[in-house]
Amino acid sequence: MSSVIAVPESPYLRAPRRALASPLVVHIGVIGPGKVGTALLAQLKDAAPRLLRDAGLSLHLRAVTDSRHMWLDCDDEALNGRAHGAQTWRPADLDAFAAYVRGEGNAVALLADCSASDIVADHYPVWLGAGMHVVTPNKRAGSGDIARWHAIHEAAAAGSAHFGYEGTVGAGLPVIQTLRDLLDTGDELVAVEGMLSGTLAWLFNRYDGSMPFSALVREAHDLGYTEPDPREDLSGVDVARKLVILAREAGLKLALKDVRISSLVPAHLAEVSRDEFMERIGELDGAMIVRHASAAAAGGVLRHVARLDRTGASVVLERVPRDHTFANARLTDNVLRFSTRRYCDNALVVQGPGAGPEVTAAAVFTDLLRVAGAMGVKRCAC
Amino acid sequence: MSSVIAVPESPYLRAPRRALASPLVVHIGVIGPGKVGTALLAQLKDAAPRLLRDAGLSLHLRAVTDSRHMWLDCDDEALNGRAHGAQTWRPADLDAFAAYVRGEGNAVALLADCSASDIVADHYPVWLGAGMHVVTPNKRAGSGDIARWHAIHEAAAAGSAHFGYEGTVGAGLPVIQTLRDLLDTGDELVAVEGMLSGTLAWLFNRYDGSMPFSALVREAHDLGYTEPDPREDLSGVDVARKLVILAREAGLKLALKDVRISSLVPAHLAEVSRDEFMERIGELDGAMIVRHASAAAAGGVLRHVARLDRTGASVVLERVPRDHTFANARLTDNVLRFSTRRYCDNALVVQGPGAGPEVTAAAVFTDLLRVAGAMGVKRCAC
Repeated sequence: MSSVIAVPESPYLRAPRRALASPLVVHIGVIGPGKVGTALLAQLKDAAPRLLRDAGLSLHLRAVTDSRHMWLDCDDEALNGRAHGAQTWRPADLDAFAAYVRGEGNAVALLADCSASDIVADHYPVWLGAGMHVVTPNKRAGSGDIARWHAIHEAAAAGSAHFGYEGTVGAGLPVIQTLRDLLDTGDELVAVEGMLSGTLAWLFNRYDGSMPFSALVREAHDLGYTEPDPREDLSGVDVARKLVILAREAGLKLALKDVRISSLVPAHLAEVSRDEFMERIGELDGAMIVRHASAAAAGGVLRHVARLDRTGASVVLERVPRDHTFANARLTDNVLRFSTRRYCDNALVVQGPGAGPEVTAAAVFTDLLRVAGAMGVKRCAC
Repeated sequence: MSSVIAVPESPYLRAPRRALASPLVVHIGVIGPGKVGTALLAQLKDAAPRLLRDAGLSLHLRAVTDSRHMWLDCDDEALNGRAHGAQTWRPADLDAFAAYVRGEGNAVALLADCSASDIVADHYPVWLGAGMHVVTPNKRAGSGDIARWHAIHEAAAAGSAHFGYEGTVGAGLPVIQTLRDLLDTGDELVAVEGMLSGTLAWLFNRYDGSMPFSALVREAHDLGYTEPDPREDLSGVDVARKLVILAREAGLKLALKDVRISSLVPAHLAEVSRDEFMERIGELDGAMIVRHASAAAAGGVLRHVARLDRTGASVVLERVPRDHTFANARLTDNVLRFSTRRYCDNALVVQGPGAGPEVTAAAVFTDLLRVAGAMGVKRCAC
């Protein structure tokens, strides 16, 4: 038995295909070599020889840029690049970067935006219009200005270039494509419910009233699970961005301001400095223990839930029954429940780690492979 | 708020695209107009006008065939076709059918095999080699003779045609593509665990020892949840087929005989007539109540679990803890847990109804849209 399922030499494309007459050459530019960008560079480097041999896909890393430096004709030096704090992306440099990635000749050009920058997102329409593919986990385009969102999608629809953003919700979990497939085959969305923040999931999976909520936030902060300023997680805005992306995917012209967000940060602590917030974070505890006790008394637990349905979009901390899917997720799991006309009695559920550099980078890589698929590259199990 | 998320006229592709100069014409032939095939025909008919308008994809239903009749130049009559019991597919007729679907000219030709026939699967290599796409929920090709499986994938890899089989495991749940994306981006599969039978999930979600197991099987049989002969479900062979498909997708040269299957049908009832089995089905009850009591005494519940890992492939009824994902699935939910190098602490989980004509047909339709995507048709949210 063991020989039958022994893992073969190449873990994913076993039988070497016939050599392809002309491989598809893809010029790649990576924007934002932070944690996700660095993970993507490592994955591309690892996979490139196999993709060339087995699928006739030739990946060329042409350039890497952060908000201060460009590395052209990349080698391993680029892998050591790091984003430098504040993102002061210069438009002129980004255009020069894109032009360099494209190069001369007929290669397919793909820009992987691993930044979290609005300024980079501003460039997507022009790049797509010029035939360059854009793949990204950057939530700004999908959740920001609706006119820009339209311009991006119109540019992608009108030309030959693709815009991929699977990594914006749930990282490597199959979310955007799953929703797209449901809708394009004629299903109708009734509701999306989810736990879309790994950080908030971890906090409320742990919080049982036996310790102050603030102590858990401090622990999460020390473990690097939260943003440097935990209010970015606690405010619910990041989750609301993901909900806006899902809503727009379903054809709803939603903006961030349309989402009802109940922030976990009291108003009087919203504007103080980060240091002052961390000092006064204990002020969250009183309200939280009351909410926890109330939920427990009703036989439930607190969970941070994002919801989109016919009544609107909301991001709230709420009580769910103990046997609910959301109550039984673990660690930093994201959960997405798609209720549709076809999936009405039971929802279609996707669950798993929804954050982290490796799985987020894999989502960007998946988008890249989808672009290659649209250019004729085949992937299969043989 | 409500106006913002009012459902727009077209539920999936809102902003009409510019008219495409030349739509992609796809000639479609549907093989096996049973429940799934009929649902597919209805979905195609419903979606065709929108896909033409919004994506420049022109779907032409050319022909439908069951094992006895062909309907050419289809109209609504074809929608009333039904599979006729025993499948006596005639090879000569199938080749004539495929040739008719293809027609003259340069249209893309796609055959949707909604049968469960080995004879139809025998034709895939020739059809693919001739440039005709094949999409199917038929498990025979993926779980049958390994030489045929190789021939199918080699034919798809060598030519221009695609072979799609998303519907073979979990029906419309995103399973095959999810595994493919994990592997192609360089992740490594550690294990797949799942509940892959909606029928067996329903039985063990309901079974609590308070009524005879056989009474539940009879109820499921009366509700149409089981095959006409419930032994086809209880034997575990159908689940084992799905496990073989997943294993081969992961590059493992597994065959059905390599799966350790513990059938729920006692050996002395395996060969008797269906009527005799239904009369004597109470003979299952004694062993089952003992197993249930043993699981309950250990604080667990019985679940029918398929598993593939480094030690082999198995399909068994086993005890799982009450807080396990498998213990908390509902109704006929399928659950798939992918444990990989990247998804190691928590698995990537896909869960939801994994059977039924509509969701199975939607998987076939999704494969069709992927073929169209590889031919340059774009789908997007705008």
